[in-house]
Amino acid sequence: MVTLVTGGAGFIGGHIARDLKRRGHYVIVADNLSTGNKLNLRGIDEFHELDLGRDNILSIFEKEYDLIYHFAGQSSVETSYSDPIYDLDTNVRSTLNIINNIKHYKNKVHLIYASSMSVYGGDEPMPKREDSPLDGKNFYAIGKKASESYLSLCSSKTIKTTSLRLFNIYGPGQNLENLNQGMLSIYLAQAINNDKIIVKGALDRSRDFVYINDLIRLTNKIENNPSCYGKILNICSGKETKISELINAIESSLKKKLTISEQVSTKGDIKRMIGCNNLLKEITGIKANTNIKDGINLMIEALKTNRYFE
Amino acid sequence: MVTLVTGGAGFIGGHIARDLKRRGHYVIVADNLSTGNKLNLRGIDEFHELDLGRDNILSIFEKEYDLIYHFAGQSSVETSYSDPIYDLDTNVRSTLNIINNIKHYKNKVHLIYASSMSVYGGDEPMPKREDSPLDGKNFYAIGKKASESYLSLCSSKTIKTTSLRLFNIYGPGQNLENLNQGMLSIYLAQAINNDKIIVKGALDRSRDFVYINDLIRLTNKIENNPSCYGKILNICSGKETKISELINAIESSLKKKLTISEQVSTKGDIKRMIGCNNLLKEITGIKANTNIKDGINLMIEALKTNRYFE
Repeated sequence: MVTLVTGGAGFIGGHIARDLKRRGHYVIVADNLSTGNKLNLRGIDEFHELDLGRDNILSIFEKEYDLIYHFAGQSSVETSYSDPIYDLDTNVRSTLNIINNIKHYKNKVHLIYASSMSVYGGDEPMPKREDSPLDGKNFYAIGKKASESYLSLCSSKTIKTTSLRLFNIYGPGQNLENLNQGMLSIYLAQAINNDKIIVKGALDRSRDFVYINDLIRLTNKIENNPSCYGKILNICSGKETKISELINAIESSLKKKLTISEQVSTKGDIKRMIGCNNLLKEITGIKANTNIKDGINLMIEALKTNRYFE
Repeated sequence: MVTLVTGGAGFIGGHIARDLKRRGHYVIVADNLSTGNKLNLRGIDEFHELDLGRDNILSIFEKEYDLIYHFAGQSSVETSYSDPIYDLDTNVRSTLNIINNIKHYKNKVHLIYASSMSVYGGDEPMPKREDSPLDGKNFYAIGKKASESYLSLCSSKTIKTTSLRLFNIYGPGQNLENLNQGMLSIYLAQAINNDKIIVKGALDRSRDFVYINDLIRLTNKIENNPSCYGKILNICSGKETKISELINAIESSLKKKLTISEQVSTKGDIKRMIGCNNLLKEITGIKANTNIKDGINLMIEALKTNRYFE
């Protein structure tokens, strides 16, 4: 099976690409390498350095795909404020570009899109269900919402779409050098390098963290699963973790006391974000159940033993 | 006062630009001329041929504006299906491009955006109020909705935004040669040229028609009106007109019997679309009250006497 993974040089896309490879797929990755890492491409069959939002991408669509993971896109809310056009291009225009290139397909393709919990916004009540109001009020959220809508519109006999609303995904392979994206990796990088963590926003904010291996177990159940066609699914654990608990877990795993500096929160930041995983459990039969402490231990262990990419 | 009108070579933007000119503004028009007409630019102070979604538009932002009408954008649902990326660029990327160029303003600017009734979608109940669900299911609607959201997000002390959800605006100056946009002008062009009207969709569909002079009276009340800052407003008459009534009015005005050919409806078409004008009346103190028969008579009269552009 020939499978396309956009954003396959990134943290999540990279894990998906390598997992597909382990399962015998012929894997083609397209990535603009703006935040991705070429190390993520080891063992991949073909790599195309392309900006999916801005370039002509005909070259990667000479083959017909059965399966496409569209995980390219910038993932920082902060960047979406500093460069909203780049956010639109990578997160929305890229989706339309792919749709344009598969609309003539005669055979079925399953197009799985990396959307985000951001579409919900931070208003209560929590946890967010897939049918909760979409009140996300930042550039990133508006773009992800538009992309989801375009995909729903394009669902057809041949194009089967599934949008995954990713909550806080973490694990080995997160780019610890990019302090603009990935809450857990931002804290961990600071903890390792400085013994001090700058927290932009309050310590009693909370999030729903999902360990990367859980995401992979879930996507294995979602891929080519007719129950997922045309659906939007939360990828969440359903568990609430406070930022203070997260930092305690990092301290305990690193076995050191950290200095915490609370600073003003970033634009578009929210207080709580917890997902409801009922639909996900019902459809996949499994759940994201790696405990945050275990996940952080695994991540730090991977860093120590240099198994950065699992 | 220096005012920018994007899409000022088009039907509605052209009327707005000429009205501003009559009221003593220094009027700068930016338009990509893809569907616009240079005749609409007569008397305008400056014209810049620019694609606001794709070009660097710094050249028109050397001046600081007090008022911007952002009416550029392709307006055909059909075109949004055949070229969704062009639709995104002209209707959404253009908005972000403008926002990028005014975000440093120290003085107030009122940015008035041409959104569309399409954002509501055709589900009952009607009439649509500004707080009705936004269920528009076509590429054009998704783009307009995203653009509205970006504008709401950018409302600030200096940037005052108003999104106008335009219903079926008609009148002299509609491009009778473009059979892809403007329901009334499409029918009228066929009636004049062929004595036969091809109606894509049922005759018992209905719409809410607004004569162009009514829109101008309304925008005069909206412009720089603090009650409109941060608001979204329907530009509608609140009256329901069936397509069959519209065609009768055209027949009666042209004094000829027309052959009607009912054909399959276009993608994304809807049965009824009526707006609630309560908020509009409350804020502006006036309403769009030109009767459809009078409006069509005025339009045909303008065509006959060559007063194509009023």
